[in-house]
Amino acid sequence: MADALKIGIAGLGTVGAALVRILQERRDMLATTCGRPIEVVAVTARDKSRDRGIDLSATTWFADAASLAADADIDVFVELMGGSGDPAYSAVKAALSRGVHVVTANKALLAAHGIELAGIAEEHGALLNYEAAVAGGIPVIKALRESLTGNTISRVYGIMNGTCNYILTKMEKEGLSFEACLKEAQRLGYAEADPAFDIEGNDTAHKLSILTSLAFGTAIAADDIYLEGITNISIDDINAAADLGYRIKLLGVAQRTESGIEQRVHPTMVPLDSVIAQVDGVTNAVAIESDILGELLMVGPGAGGNATASAVLGDIADIAKSRPGAQTVPAFGRPVTALLPYTRAQIQSHEGGYFIRLTVIDKAGVFASIATRMAENKISLESIVQRSKTHTESGAPQTIILVTHATMEDAVRKAVASIKTEGYLVGEPQVIRIERPKAA
Amino acid sequence: MADALKIGIAGLGTVGAALVRILQERRDMLATTCGRPIEVVAVTARDKSRDRGIDLSATTWFADAASLAADADIDVFVELMGGSGDPAYSAVKAALSRGVHVVTANKALLAAHGIELAGIAEEHGALLNYEAAVAGGIPVIKALRESLTGNTISRVYGIMNGTCNYILTKMEKEGLSFEACLKEAQRLGYAEADPAFDIEGNDTAHKLSILTSLAFGTAIAADDIYLEGITNISIDDINAAADLGYRIKLLGVAQRTESGIEQRVHPTMVPLDSVIAQVDGVTNAVAIESDILGELLMVGPGAGGNATASAVLGDIADIAKSRPGAQTVPAFGRPVTALLPYTRAQIQSHEGGYFIRLTVIDKAGVFASIATRMAENKISLESIVQRSKTHTESGAPQTIILVTHATMEDAVRKAVASIKTEGYLVGEPQVIRIERPKAA
Repeated sequence: MADALKIGIAGLGTVGAALVRILQERRDMLATTCGRPIEVVAVTARDKSRDRGIDLSATTWFADAASLAADADIDVFVELMGGSGDPAYSAVKAALSRGVHVVTANKALLAAHGIELAGIAEEHGALLNYEAAVAGGIPVIKALRESLTGNTISRVYGIMNGTCNYILTKMEKEGLSFEACLKEAQRLGYAEADPAFDIEGNDTAHKLSILTSLAFGTAIAADDIYLEGITNISIDDINAAADLGYRIKLLGVAQRTESGIEQRVHPTMVPLDSVIAQVDGVTNAVAIESDILGELLMVGPGAGGNATASAVLGDIADIAKSRPGAQTVPAFGRPVTALLPYTRAQIQSHEGGYFIRLTVIDKAGVFASIATRMAENKISLESIVQRSKTHTESGAPQTIILVTHATMEDAVRKAVASIKTEGYLVGEPQVIRIERPKAA
Repeated sequence: MADALKIGIAGLGTVGAALVRILQERRDMLATTCGRPIEVVAVTARDKSRDRGIDLSATTWFADAASLAADADIDVFVELMGGSGDPAYSAVKAALSRGVHVVTANKALLAAHGIELAGIAEEHGALLNYEAAVAGGIPVIKALRESLTGNTISRVYGIMNGTCNYILTKMEKEGLSFEACLKEAQRLGYAEADPAFDIEGNDTAHKLSILTSLAFGTAIAADDIYLEGITNISIDDINAAADLGYRIKLLGVAQRTESGIEQRVHPTMVPLDSVIAQVDGVTNAVAIESDILGELLMVGPGAGGNATASAVLGDIADIAKSRPGAQTVPAFGRPVTALLPYTRAQIQSHEGGYFIRLTVIDKAGVFASIATRMAENKISLESIVQRSKTHTESGAPQTIILVTHATMEDAVRKAVASIKTEGYLVGEPQVIRIERPKAA
């Protein structure tokens, strides 16, 4: 049997501790599968004294990630600290610069510095593996980077934030408000005390930027993502969606268009009978549409210590199974010098169906006015429904819901803006984009 | 850039021709991604004169697969002939024995000789890749062999035959008979003129035997699979299933149990609100349940020239990206000598829920008798429903549908056998197993 693969781990939180435990408990099984043992020889974390329920007696403790990355006698540097800046950034750079392979679960780091790090990896013959950074345990990086080689990708989209999907699922199933479901998510540990990063869509955007680069062979453009969170989604939207045969999901979507690549994160109506509509709770799902293979959808746990550790372990095992200097898989699917520049398609030119919910005062001519404003902007309607709440006095505000055929975002914005000047709207209009699987 | 990877292709049917075309049209893109060009240098097929719409001018034509495998100056032998015996079997053996990597889409060959071929591959440092052999374009082999390394798998199951899923979907959606839907499948080219291999479950069984070996690290046992096709599924079963919140799918299931590994292929009730229940038409789906990652479900095209060619291309690209002799991934996840013997769990000891549909003559005491026979066999019932068809005269046969809680197959068989002796049954009882996703 070949020499052991020596691992250094920076970060011993839930994922790091789970990884150490699994590597120790399954040492023999892993050695059989990988053709050599995998040994954790070096670790670092913020607090040395904390009891993590794992045996670190055979490992060297380093004071910080920088010194572990620079000095430890390791084949693989496993970065599980998180954060786009230091200490993770410099430590990963230092490891790659020594030709040490890096396995990371750090989406923020890759979204900010992925291409630079991939370049350093290539230059020094090191691998940069990051399956755990996107959609946790779902092997979407491997699918894009390896399985779909040779395919031209037209669209990648998915549910990549468990917190948001948990909240939206719970709102629909139990008829509760956004605020109530967020509180429950926080109580269960599915949402942070400060939930903004999840519910505003930033977390999904980080992951999407990585998928976009892999799917389209472009440089990462994490700042060029159109972003809308789920905080404005009301139970009325969810119920109206259900009545019309849709369900609301927070999707990240990257799509090739004539004017460039769209990257957008927003609440989205998906058809109720589509497979992705059934993905409930904290579960994630990613769909990839390509010209040779067709549509591939993968569903699985997007977070959690074990699921993330499993993805990290798969990345480590890939390195263990190869021989030093053997593998030449570029981190983002093609050599950094061959990556294309990212051209942003503006959201105004997005083409698709739209759901528009308007609350209006109850007077004659409103319905006709709305229909006219739509027609003026050449928006063709799939349906327009006026919903009267029962048990409300006559003259109370009414809800009008429109579903459009495929149209331009720009036209929708103009139509809504002109409706806003009419004086019959109560509150803000709600506009939600519709996304359909290729097959549906 | 490194030397070109030289490919020989045996079999130029739909998949082979698509593969040649893709490799030629995307030569530059593939060279960029893989770090070296991929060149088709040798081919063979039954009929040299046939026009396949592809350019073979730069390739050497071999008279047969055996001579291509034995003599051609190639790095990879791509076997797309099909069939468990010769010429495929000997040709693959010959290639591997020379240390030439093999990529194959041939499930029958692997089900019959997979372990022997894996042994030859290991001995000569060759890779044996076969992503296309199971569930077409879905990267389930890579997920099991690479992504899930270190996980202990408890169950693998899926929809792996597009013909059966097309028929079952069409029966439900259009209320048509099995025979009518089969004819339509044949007309559309989704079913063979002799459809037995698909509709009796043999095709699914071949694929399942490969997944079982990969999932559980055991020798392939394709002959130890419990097999039931879909020919006895009636529209009454499908409607009854829908009423009870289920949908019928032909599943292949491999499951670890206390007494061994169950391998079974049969019509199965899955909960209507599960993700896999939404997988319609010719689409395939495979679910993997493991102890670290959790449940992973992959959905995609299970057949077709392009989807299959895409999977073959991914396998070739994996070889192109590695350096000669570099990769040591064993074909079935662990070295052949480390594979465990397969211990078959008998179907009689299968534990699960059951759907039982009985047609009985309309007389007093039948309902009570059925309930008693169930109780005698310690079968606890989730529901028991008597369905009277409207517009039938009194005294006409009645349908009684039972859904059991988890019970043993043996108990169900005994209960049904004793009911059959009572004299009130009309025709044969229908018994369909229920399978639930872990999370549901």
